[in-house]
Amino acid sequence: MHESRSEAPVGQDRGPAFDLAIDGGIVVPVRPAHAVLDAHTVLVRAGRIEAVLPTAGTLDLDVRERVSLPGHLLMPGLVNLHAHAAMTLMRGLSDDLPLMRWLQEHIWPAEAKFVSDAFVEAGTRLACAEMLRGGITCFNDMYFFPEAAARAVLQSGMRASLGMIAIEFPTAYATDAEDYLARGIATRDALRGEPLLSFCFAPHAPYTVSDQTFSRIRTYAQQLDAPIHVHLHETLQEIADSEAAFGMRPIARLDRLGLIGAETIAVHAVHLDERDIDTLARRGAHVAHCPSSNLKLASGFCPVARLAEAGVDIGLGTDSAASNNRLDLFSELRLASLLAKAVSGSAEALPAFAAVEMATLGGARALGLDNRIGSLEPGKAADIIALDMSAIEAQPCYDPMSHLAYVAGREQVTDAWVAGRRCLKDRRPTLIDTDSLAAEVALWQARLGAHADGRG
Amino acid sequence: MHESRSEAPVGQDRGPAFDLAIDGGIVVPVRPAHAVLDAHTVLVRAGRIEAVLPTAGTLDLDVRERVSLPGHLLMPGLVNLHAHAAMTLMRGLSDDLPLMRWLQEHIWPAEAKFVSDAFVEAGTRLACAEMLRGGITCFNDMYFFPEAAARAVLQSGMRASLGMIAIEFPTAYATDAEDYLARGIATRDALRGEPLLSFCFAPHAPYTVSDQTFSRIRTYAQQLDAPIHVHLHETLQEIADSEAAFGMRPIARLDRLGLIGAETIAVHAVHLDERDIDTLARRGAHVAHCPSSNLKLASGFCPVARLAEAGVDIGLGTDSAASNNRLDLFSELRLASLLAKAVSGSAEALPAFAAVEMATLGGARALGLDNRIGSLEPGKAADIIALDMSAIEAQPCYDPMSHLAYVAGREQVTDAWVAGRRCLKDRRPTLIDTDSLAAEVALWQARLGAHADGRG
Repeated sequence: MHESRSEAPVGQDRGPAFDLAIDGGIVVPVRPAHAVLDAHTVLVRAGRIEAVLPTAGTLDLDVRERVSLPGHLLMPGLVNLHAHAAMTLMRGLSDDLPLMRWLQEHIWPAEAKFVSDAFVEAGTRLACAEMLRGGITCFNDMYFFPEAAARAVLQSGMRASLGMIAIEFPTAYATDAEDYLARGIATRDALRGEPLLSFCFAPHAPYTVSDQTFSRIRTYAQQLDAPIHVHLHETLQEIADSEAAFGMRPIARLDRLGLIGAETIAVHAVHLDERDIDTLARRGAHVAHCPSSNLKLASGFCPVARLAEAGVDIGLGTDSAASNNRLDLFSELRLASLLAKAVSGSAEALPAFAAVEMATLGGARALGLDNRIGSLEPGKAADIIALDMSAIEAQPCYDPMSHLAYVAGREQVTDAWVAGRRCLKDRRPTLIDTDSLAAEVALWQARLGAHADGRG
Repeated sequence: MHESRSEAPVGQDRGPAFDLAIDGGIVVPVRPAHAVLDAHTVLVRAGRIEAVLPTAGTLDLDVRERVSLPGHLLMPGLVNLHAHAAMTLMRGLSDDLPLMRWLQEHIWPAEAKFVSDAFVEAGTRLACAEMLRGGITCFNDMYFFPEAAARAVLQSGMRASLGMIAIEFPTAYATDAEDYLARGIATRDALRGEPLLSFCFAPHAPYTVSDQTFSRIRTYAQQLDAPIHVHLHETLQEIADSEAAFGMRPIARLDRLGLIGAETIAVHAVHLDERDIDTLARRGAHVAHCPSSNLKLASGFCPVARLAEAGVDIGLGTDSAASNNRLDLFSELRLASLLAKAVSGSAEALPAFAAVEMATLGGARALGLDNRIGSLEPGKAADIIALDMSAIEAQPCYDPMSHLAYVAGREQVTDAWVAGRRCLKDRRPTLIDTDSLAAEVALWQARLGAHADGRG
């Protein structure tokens, strides 16, 4: 990729000065904070943003392609900080059950029977189509067969951080923790040259990963400079079990093992006491807040306003389509803001811009990608989405930032670019054949559905 | 309207036996409870449902118009049990403020300056367009100038219950409680012949209406057999103020005045003790649950699962676009179910069908309209909506009922009929000119926006 940065458009030696100019009615760049720019244009060269300028001043520039989207709002692509993309094939397979019955009687048996390289590729492709159509341009995944997920992601044109997963029990993917890690690292090594892929260590959770494996991951993560993506403090049961087995809460246990740091993405973080919050804040750890999933599984309410007040970086995640069941970060953004107000008892908590920032730059920071994505700034990758603000549901509009938090639906997203490449055009993924995808999903549905019926 | 009921299609003397046949891929009639009917057709005559039958058995019937919607789901139109439709012109005018600052510094000054017959007609028309496009075919309104709201509703083709509002302070609409009631009743009398309109008494709230006015409303409501639609137990402050002023909680005060009965629609009902719940249940009162609004204003969490367990009928409301900011009952349906699980600590709380029932039959019951709407049953009005289930976001689909609660977005709604008349076709309102509506809304936005800036 082209390494030069420029704060203003500059001429180049050969060809047009810019590859792409996108004219939005409004631009919300996230940086500067709170900015809402009327009639601005984003200029792109070699996959990067060169400048965000008033449209009137760009009309004479030498531009290879100009996309005019009047009535649209341009903003950074959303970052989904916690997903199990392949599980989209299990969307709505079962609902309305207590967590352990849901897992033991439905999700785990289906996974044991069906999860494979082909399942993961198909499920991830389905997730990518849905996420792109909803304005998500980057997601952080945790699942088996990340090499299959990588194929789907690369085909879609999206950006992703893929999990090098580790658990202590065998699956079709690997036999034990050492095997999981070896496979994950081999996948990472094979795909190091892919500019849109990055990798996280993904120890599943405190109740499925041993101290020995956590310690090994800590060493590897330091060597490879990779984030660590782990479910943490999702349920009260998890905390009680940890206290019984280890004499301490999971965050304290992981902190003692050196696993809580600036590279840590603590997923859920629902049940936190002041010491937990202090540990996360002091260590510079990040939280992946998944409000729909926390509600649907009756896990509880993440103290988002308190975490933000303590200075903890927070991103938003959809979790899987088996527990959400929409991979819709606009829903999560809105829900996060609304819940934060009711949980904290203050209507001023998590105002519109703060929620928009969580869904973009917050997630980028957690992934260590905030130098490349999360805002529309010169030098960053051109990961950009456009929302049609002309629908009657978005009228009137006194404040576009308010609309992004409280009015916008993913159905308003019309276009998406990742590193300057248009991956969504007029609501259609440009690189995914959604007809053949739908046919493939129907086959998986028939198999999983028959299996579910067979168990009565 | 045609009064005969028939459980199966019957021949008629003149003309086709049926006016309309709608073929859905799936029909969710709400009654029988839990039913999900594959490849069924809804047959309509004279604005009423005659039968819901397997499509194959209807192909030879004599039908004036047949609408085939393969890949669609048919269900009863949603009932929005609490709205202030005209306030849609104030969507996003201000957010992220404590309730009293929000009201005193933003909403009330804007209302004092702008609310008029023309404001209410324009705002209600905007709300009708949004609600129809989101699958709402009936709403229960509380606002000034109900005669202006009635014009907008009648134009849109929707069904509505309009509030005969009462408060103790003057507005552009009326001078005192007696004047409010006289105007409301006069509007009701003038519009009695409209089959799609009904009327509720709408005393605003315990903190804005006197005992004397409540007692008068009780008498009128008995005489006119009309529901009573009142904000109740929305905030802790309201309860504390009532205890200070009246020595009792608002529900106890209203119960003593005879205002809590089968005709009562208690809006919000966020803060309830066991005696409050017992009173609502024993009296057969109804609750209008408005989850987005309760979160956004930091009011709190309605104990929905506990109310349902106590046998209280519950419907869902959007509240106004100034405090939500979407008039989207599919969002409320999903949020109600998710919140009920986290609040009660049980993932089994408010399962999918129960939430779908709240959004349809629950609201119809509260309005005393469950003999006419809320389910697709022979003899009921043909208030029907169609959702496109073919989008990639809705794949796979193991259980359409689960998808209605956890996956469906209002953008999937393509068509709506009210009393057999098609009010929405391919996502376009058939009776509202949305282009001229948008232009009218833009004028109001300019006026309200200039006013808001002037005070900033």
